[in-house]
This record gives sequence, structure tokens and C-alpha cells, in this order.
Amino acid sequence: MKLSGVMPPIVTPFINGKLALDKLKMNFQKWNKTGLSGYLVLGSNGEAVYLNEKEKIRVLEVSRECIPPSKIMLVGTGLESTQETIRFTNQAAKMGADCALVVTPSYFKGSMKPQILYEHFLSVAESSRIGILLYNVPQFAGINMESELVARLSEHPNIKGIKDSSGNIDQLTQIVHQSRKDFVVFVGSAPVFFPALCIGAVGGILAVANVVPEKCVRIQTLYNQQKLMEARKLQNQLTPLAKAVTVKYGIGGLKMAMDLAGYFGGDPRSPLKRPGQEVEKELRRLLLQIENPMPMPESPSKLQ
Amino acid sequence: MKLSGVMPPIVTPFINGKLALDKLKMNFQKWNKTGLSGYLVLGSNGEAVYLNEKEKIRVLEVSRECIPPSKIMLVGTGLESTQETIRFTNQAAKMGADCALVVTPSYFKGSMKPQILYEHFLSVAESSRIGILLYNVPQFAGINMESELVARLSEHPNIKGIKDSSGNIDQLTQIVHQSRKDFVVFVGSAPVFFPALCIGAVGGILAVANVVPEKCVRIQTLYNQQKLMEARKLQNQLTPLAKAVTVKYGIGGLKMAMDLAGYFGGDPRSPLKRPGQEVEKELRRLLLQIENPMPMPESPSKLQ
Amino acid sequence: MKLSGVMPPIVTPFINGKLALDKLKMNFQKWNKTGLSGYLVLGSNGEAVYLNEKEKIRVLEVSRECIPPSKIMLVGTGLESTQETIRFTNQAAKMGADCALVVTPSYFKGSMKPQILYEHFLSVAESSRIGILLYNVPQFAGINMESELVARLSEHPNIKGIKDSSGNIDQLTQIVHQSRKDFVVFVGSAPVFFPALCIGAVGGILAVANVVPEKCVRIQTLYNQQKLMEARKLQNQLTPLAKAVTVKYGIGGLKMAMDLAGYFGGDPRSPLKRPGQEVEKELRRLLLQIENPMPMPESPSKLQ
Amino acid sequence: MKLSGVMPPIVTPFINGKLALDKLKMNFQKWNKTGLSGYLVLGSNGEAVYLNEKEKIRVLEVSRECIPPSKIMLVGTGLESTQETIRFTNQAAKMGADCALVVTPSYFKGSMKPQILYEHFLSVAESSRIGILLYNVPQFAGINMESELVARLSEHPNIKGIKDSSGNIDQLTQIVHQSRKDFVVFVGSAPVFFPALCIGAVGGILAVANVVPEKCVRIQTLYNQQKLMEARKLQNQLTPLAKAVTVKYGIGGLKMAMDLAGYFGGDPRSPLKRPGQEVEKELRRLLLQIENPMPMPESPSKLQ
Repeated sequence: MKLSGVMPPIVTPFINGKLALDKLKMNFQKWNKTGLSGYLVLGSNGEAVYLNEKEKIRVLEVSRECIPPSKIMLVGTGLESTQETIRFTNQAAKMGADCALVVTPSYFKGSMKPQILYEHFLSVAESSRIGILLYNVPQFAGINMESELVARLSEHPNIKGIKDSSGNIDQLTQIVHQSRKDFVVFVGSAPVFFPALCIGAVGGILAVANVVPEKCVRIQTLYNQQKLMEARKLQNQLTPLAKAVTVKYGIGGLKMAMDLAGYFGGDPRSPLKRPGQEVEKELRRLLLQIENPMPMPESPSKLQ
Repeated sequence: MKLSGVMPPIVTPFINGKLALDKLKMNFQKWNKTGLSGYLVLGSNGEAVYLNEKEKIRVLEVSRECIPPSKIMLVGTGLESTQETIRFTNQAAKMGADCALVVTPSYFKGSMKPQILYEHFLSVAESSRIGILLYNVPQFAGINMESELVARLSEHPNIKGIKDSSGNIDQLTQIVHQSRKDFVVFVGSAPVFFPALCIGAVGGILAVANVVPEKCVRIQTLYNQQKLMEARKLQNQLTPLAKAVTVKYGIGGLKMAMDLAGYFGGDPRSPLKRPGQEVEKELRRLLLQIENPMPMPESPSKLQ
Repeated sequence: MKLSGVMPPIVTPFINGKLALDKLKMNFQKWNKTGLSGYLVLGSNGEAVYLNEKEKIRVLEVSRECIPPSKIMLVGTGLESTQETIRFTNQAAKMGADCALVVTPSYFKGSMKPQILYEHFLSVAESSRIGILLYNVPQFAGINMESELVARLSEHPNIKGIKDSSGNIDQLTQIVHQSRKDFVVFVGSAPVFFPALCIGAVGGILAVANVVPEKCVRIQTLYNQQKLMEARKLQNQLTPLAKAVTVKYGIGGLKMAMDLAGYFGGDPRSPLKRPGQEVEKELRRLLLQIENPMPMPESPSKLQ
Repeated sequence: MKLSGVMPPIVTPFINGKLALDKLKMNFQKWNKTGLSGYLVLGSNGEAVYLNEKEKIRVLEVSRECIPPSKIMLVGTGLESTQETIRFTNQAAKMGADCALVVTPSYFKGSMKPQILYEHFLSVAESSRIGILLYNVPQFAGINMESELVARLSEHPNIKGIKDSSGNIDQLTQIVHQSRKDFVVFVGSAPVFFPALCIGAVGGILAVANVVPEKCVRIQTLYNQQKLMEARKLQNQLTPLAKAVTVKYGIGGLKMAMDLAGYFGGDPRSPLKRPGQEVEKELRRLLLQIENPMPMPESPSKLQ
């Protein structure tokens, strides 16, 4: 199974605070018809930190059932302790995950020195029955993995790649350049999806791909066809929505946009909240803009 | 029960990665003979993020058994989701906790706006059978609670106070000044324990109090006796050790210092590590300095 | 001359963008009648970065004329290059300054390692005909001087002390504790003036002392008389105005507050601006509160 | 004159701390034979903050003399005050500058709100006899210009473009997209030169172009020829040196690398220092690597 392409970190649907797995199935039916290469289950945007273990198992079961063998099933399994991370990674493996995404432990930020992280990921890689991807997400974890650490870790055969959500293109470039030849780099920040492809990323794991999967996939297709001007133009259309459903309005905004786009979003769990009507209007406008972009092209000088 | 004085956020002893509750009992026997006013169980330094729920329950049972009724039993119960926080707070209440310490949820840092935090803490306070203390710890959570938010929350009768570990004395001053009259402010950063008392804190919840409880208690006693010069002098003796067992060497360092001071520290759980021999030497030296401080006094001009 | 007490970093008056030295004289006449121990001329709040050298000389001349020999004349002389800093420090010395305040050079932040700063300040101290005070102001300079560096520098006999505006009380405590016995520490952040005195600062160089000098002086007097509760209470009355004329509304706000308090403030130079009427109302209210504080005392429990 | 291509922010040569203008001429003779499109005179790397006005004028005279009419003469003219910036910009215009680079004023960081910066740049643009480029350099200024502010400023006909040194590719993308059609965007951070071209930058103003101008120019040529794999490969060869002569060793490192590459670098002014022999070895090695890169190509999978 080739690790590349566009994957959404799928949201977890709730109704009145309870898991709504039939809604999850509905979402999969629609996503499966698109060019998405796979799915990240139990990622940050899946509100994994708000699910207890039983709920996580239920989400995994339904996801495994719904994801066709041709698409990647990537599962977020990182926890704070090394031991628990290993245990849950192998639980996910047993349930059919293709690969595990392991976030940096981060509660004790000051203690998470490179060597501590190195040993943590190595222990997990050694003990995991499936390949793992590292997950660097400074905006949630409050710590960053430098390219030198990633390069060292890339030497382990069971560490297949990384999802880097820092948005730092210099760092992504260094990771691509310094790591093992077949180490795969996914970008986790949609506003830099196109430039990340330019410097060697193999794909994107993008929250906004929950909402407009085809638009995201199309950017990569255009890039692969060397249609740089068109890829860049589509990126510029996508960016405002991508920011609205992440930094600006968070998971509440993401789920609201999904509702507007014909998926089931629903409410996030407390303390997160669904945004109000003003945000709904804005999201509706941003969605329309992507579907029907302004005909006026960017100036040719800017798209050479 | 009066909320004030010095409390250690007690460490959780492990042997070979397993809970060592007899060692915890031994520690309590020694601590109980000191002037500590109480204990924080399942705090950050208790490695609560590395314990599963069963282990937490066992720690609570043993702590309840060991803590005499004259001392405060404060329990860390904050989790990411509002619902789980309420559930676990009431679990702790049922097991005999006097008060719950509720940390800011923080995984989705960008979404934790003041109003979101306000509603989270209000829900918990409404539903909790015991009083709660807010817990502000930017160095772990990556977010800070401003004094205005704390002041608003202080109006709820079931929100009794705050532990603020920011180390920001301006902020502590504002919290004391702007909050409800009987709202209690504990400082969570030992290097500013003495100035925090000067601006109105009622006590400290201090990692270093696991190691040298009497020294910490003595600072507050001296302050209460208006012996400012002596209190400040003792603070200056304490600070290097206090930093070594927190920012500098983390929980591994804290546990090592406890071993050196006659308590059971042991190893932290992975990915945390016990530091090496160089650190042991340094900690031994710092402990000696506190027990036998240099006879040469600070210059009188500095201690007026 | 004893370095201690309260000094304002005096503002530089302009009318239509031109120096208004008669207004400066008027301000001095009023300030001289208060308990201020001296003045900082050409500090940050004096808009020194907006003055050319000729203007600086004129301000020094008038200040020297107006400042009585019983009060300290401290002059801000730090520039980016070592050579220019030495030249201008000796120019100020020739014009009668008692002491020079030398800010950290900071344009090339990444290069300003401790050893570079050490050599810079040592060169200046060696070549200066008057004593110097270090000036640490992270909010403007973007770099911080750690207590270890300050302690090393304090060994030079011509480095008399420091103005630390970081607001970090832990750092101030360490500076007081680690430095030479007679090294003087001034705090540069009014909201922590009282706690800074508690941990050993000898005084404050405070923007708000331009506006309400007597209130600032009174805090120190109360502290010296061991009237801690009253000192703290007055601090709490002062803090909102102190923040308004610094972090909140900057020098434009400071000058407006001076106009309201009977001094000449006037407009700052562009790009700084005088704030609008809303801010004027707020400043007026804050001033009134200080002059006529609410009769209701803080709860006794908070003022022990 | 078309604003695009690669320009070095030229260093200012000193011998024993004095301007060495003959060395500057020598450097220009070599640079003029390369494909550089122009020069930035009196930029940050020109140590402009360490030059007095007379010295600046001398550097401008010599530069004007040495720069052929076919190449751009861009001059750094930004100062803290609006009035002084206007005055010096017109001085540079009178001396033959083609365009002025105006850095954000930044000493009073907290006061530099978007509207204040907007009015500052507008005043300068209105009064300047030559076109201006905005200069955003958070690592020196400590403040950042958001794309929305840049877009608003781009509407003024005399504001021709921007040099953005943030290294933030998302921000550069937004600036290109949101600004006036013919607004030019130069990237000021060499490690992201290639991705910046991909998203629409017209060129780079790069410290490392003082040392290896042809390599920098070649990246842009390869990009223009749509040879993306080769451009990216050359970028990866350039990056380690580019970082060494900026973030890692600063201007001292930049000047040392110039000496090694056959230009005159010399010493920076105090407090900056020339690095020691270890750094010289490292720089020599990095230069060799660029001139004679390892024959082994990157894996084809990474260069598609």
C-alpha cells in the first residue's frame, strides 16, 4: 500500500454528546466515492482526547468496516506514556489499521528533549506490529520535532514517515532532504499544501478534506501534471476555508462546514462549542467561493 | 477546613513501572509529621497523565487512608472533556477528597477562549459535590488564565480558589485583588513563594515540598511572623533546589532528590527518565546547602 | 549620591513635533517638589529613539539646569554599537550626568549571546567616566539578560546596578541574590513595584511616576515603615493606571495622562499617536480612582 | 526597471572599525560580473544600525558609482520616526537610489498596531520621490506585518512591493494573492527561496547571495525553466550555508564566508564579533559542498 495522497483526519459525529456511528457510516459512503487515498481515524480533529477507550474501539470497528482495502486506514494511537501508546497501537493493529500515527507526548513539555522523544518513538516502533508515522503538531502539543531528530528516527525500518502540521516549509524541506530515501512526508497544514508538494511532500492530511475532498485531491493532481499555475490558483481558493475550519473556528467550525457541504458534522463535545450564525454565514460564503470561484483570473505576471 | 499553607503535589511511586503503594504509605508517614497543611494527589507531578483510571483509584484509596482528617486532601481531577471532568471529580468526592483541583483543558489551545473556559469551569462547579480550585499552569497547558476570567469565576460559591503556577507575580496580585473576598490563591511556583505571600497568597502547592517540606513551611511561618529578612533569605536558599526539581530536571529530578532526602522517589514512567550521576551529585550538593547554608549572611543592605 | 528611590523616565515634550523645552522646565518645577529621588533623562519613554543627537543635547542641557544636585540625574545613553555607546556616554558625563543607563543592544537579536553582551557592557564600563546601570527591557529589546550574566557584570566596579523592566520577580530575586553586595536593583515595571521592594529592590524607575509621583513614592515609604498591608493596597490602586500608560496605551497614553494630571504631556512623535476621547475618559477615571479611592477596604483576610 | 531577481543585502566592509570603501568597490567589481539583478545597500546585513549618517552617505556614494544602470540600486532607509524616515529616503533618492526599502519601525513593539504602521508607510510613500518596498523582518524587528495590512498598503501606487523575511510561506502566499496585481514580493529568507518562487515571489534578497551569487541566481533560472527537480536540489545544497551565514553565525559568519569565497568580508563592528576557527572550518566545508556537491543524487521518488 503506497502512502501518499490526500487523507482527511475524520471527525467523530455525536448526537447529544453520544457517538453517532450511523452518521459516520454515511460520511464514509460519500468520501469513498472521491479520490481520497485514505483516512486518519482518531486524529486530533476526531476529538480523540474526548473519547474514552470503549468509544475509540467502536469508532475503529465502524471505520474498518467502511474503509475499502484500496484506501489507507491510518489510526491515531499516541498517548502520553510509552507503555500505553504501545498497547493501544497494537490494539489498533489487531483491529485492522494499516498504519499508526503517533503524536509527540507533550504534557511535560520541558522534559521532552530530543533524546527522550527519540527513545519513546523507537520503543513504539520496535513493539508495534504495524508501521508508524510520526506526528508533529506544535500548535496542539506545544513542542516541535526538529528535522535532525526526524532524520535519526527515519533510519528505523518501522518508522515509515511523518505528518508535520507546523506549517513551516523550511522544516518540511529539511525533513524531506535529511531523512531516509523512502521516508514519506505528509503536510498537515492545508494553506501550504501546494508549496509542500513542490518541496517533496507525498500528500496531505488535511482537516478541510473532510469538507471538500475533491478540491484537495485536485491540487495534487494538478501538481503531478506540472500545471503549477492552476494548482496554485486552486490553493488560493482553498486557503480561506481551510483556515476557517482550523485556526479560526476550530472543530466546531469544521463540523459546521461539513453540515453545509452535505456531510454530517453535528456538534463537538464540551468544552468545544458549535459557532453561531455569523460564522455559519461566513462558512457558507467561503464554500460557495470554492465551488464557484470568481471568473477573473490572477494577473498572469503572478502565475508564471 | 481552612484552605492555606504548604502542600506538596505528591509523586506517585513506581517499581519497575508498577504502582508501589507501600512506598507511598511510607512517604505519607514522614510527611504527616511535618507542618504541611495538606496534599495534592494526582497532580501533574503525580504523573497523573501516565496513570490509567484503575491506578488513579488505587492511589486515591491509599491517600485517603494515609491523610489525617486535620490535613487537606486535594485531588487533581481535570480532564480534557467537561463531562469526564465532572464524572471523575464526583468519583474523587465519593472517595473522600476534600476539594478538587481542575486544570484548564488545553489540547485545542486555540479554541480555549475565555468564554469556553468560563463555561467549562462553571459546569464542573455546578455539578461537583465538593469545592473546586482552578489550576493555571501555562508551562504544561500552553494557555494562561487571565485575572479577569478568574475574577468572574470566583463569583461562583463552589469555586473556592486557584493554584497559579505561572510564576507571574503581577498576575497573582491581580487575581488576589480582583477576586471574591474569600477566594484563596495558592502559588504553584516555589521560586516566587515568598513574594507571593507578600502580595496575598494563602499558601503554596510546591513540588519541592515533596523533598524539604519543613523548609517550605518555615518560609510561610517566618512571613507570618513578619520576619521578612529571614523569610527572604530562606527563599534564596530554597530556590536553586526548587528549580532543579522542576524546570531543570523535571519529575525524574524530583524523584531522585526525594531518594536523597530519605523519601521514596524511584523512577518516573517512560518516556520520562531518571537523570544520571552528574545530576545526582548536583542535587546532593543543593540539598546539603539547604540543610547547612553558608554561614556568611547576605549583606544587611539587601535584607532591610 | 545614594542610588535608590523612585525616578520617572521623563517624557520629552513636543509642540507640533518640535522640542518644547519650556514645557519640560515646567514639568521639572512640579516634580522637584515631590519625593522623587531623581530622573531618568532620554529613556525609552523619553522617545530617545525619535530624537536626533542635537535634540538629545538640548534635552540634557535643560535637564541638567533643572535637576537639583540633591536628586539623581540618570541618562539613557545606550546605542546599538559599542563605540557609539561609549562616545555618547562620555558626552552625557561631560554634560553633568550622574550615571548612565545603558540598554542592551538588540537589533541583531540572535547574535546577542551572553558573552557578546558581557563584552559590550564591560567595554562601556571600562571607558565611561561615570558609573553605569544596565537596562534590561525585553518588551522593547526582544532579548532578556539572565541573572547569571548580570551577576558576572556586577563584579565590575563601574557597573553600579540594573534597571530590570521584565516584570519577572523570580529573575529580580535572583539578580539581587547573585550580584555584588552593593549592586543596586531598580524595578522598571510599576505593577510589581511593591513585591520588588519585598525581595530587595532599592527603588523603581516607573513611567507612571511622571503622572502621580507622590503615589509611587508613598508605596516605598510605606514599605520602609513595614506597613505592608497599606503598601499593597496602594499598589493595587496604582496598577490599573500604571498599565494604561505603558502596555495598554503606550507613550501617547502616558502623555495624555500627564495633561490630565496637571503636567505638560502633549503629543508623541509619529508614528506614535495621541489616543482618542474614549481613552481620555478612561484615564480620567483611573486618575480619579487613585486620588479618591473607594472607601471600602479590601477584606482583612487578604491584607494580613 | 523591472523589480525581480536575486539581490544581496551587501555587507559594509570595515578595517579596524573604519569604513573600507575600496574593499566595497572590489566586491562590486566581482558581483557585477554575475547574474545578480541588483543590490540592497544599507540593509540589516550592511550593519546600517552601526553607521552614523556621514558613513551612510559615503557608502551610498560609492555604491551609486559602482552599480551599473542595468542593475537595481535599492537602499535601506527606514528609521524609527516617520519624519526621519522621509528625510533619509529623499536623501537616498537625491543620491540616485532606484527604490527605498523601509523597515517597520519597531522599538515600541506594543504600540505598532496595524493602523499605526499603515499611516507610517503611507506618509513615507506620499512624501518619497522614489518608489518604496516594505520590509518585514520579525526576527530583527520583533513584530510581523500581516498580509491584510500589506494588501491595504499595496493599493498605494508608490508602494511597489515587499521584502518579507519571515520565512512563513503561508504568509507569502497570502501577500502575493491579496495584493495589487503588479505588487512585487521578494523573499528575504534563503532556505525558502525555491518554494517562495513556486508560490509567486519575483525574487530573493538573500544574505548568502553576498557569498555565492551565482548559485542563488541559478535556482531562479532553473525554476523559470520549469526544472523543478534541479532547482530543489540546488536549494538543498544552498540551505546549510544560508543558515550558517544568518541565524547560526550572524554577520560575523557572513563576512567570514565572504573572505573564504574570494570577496572582502572582514570584521563586523562591536558588539558583533568574527567567529573563531571552528566556525571557519565549518564554513569552508559548507562552501566546498556547494561548489562540489556529492555526486549521489537524491532518490528519484523525492524529486518527482
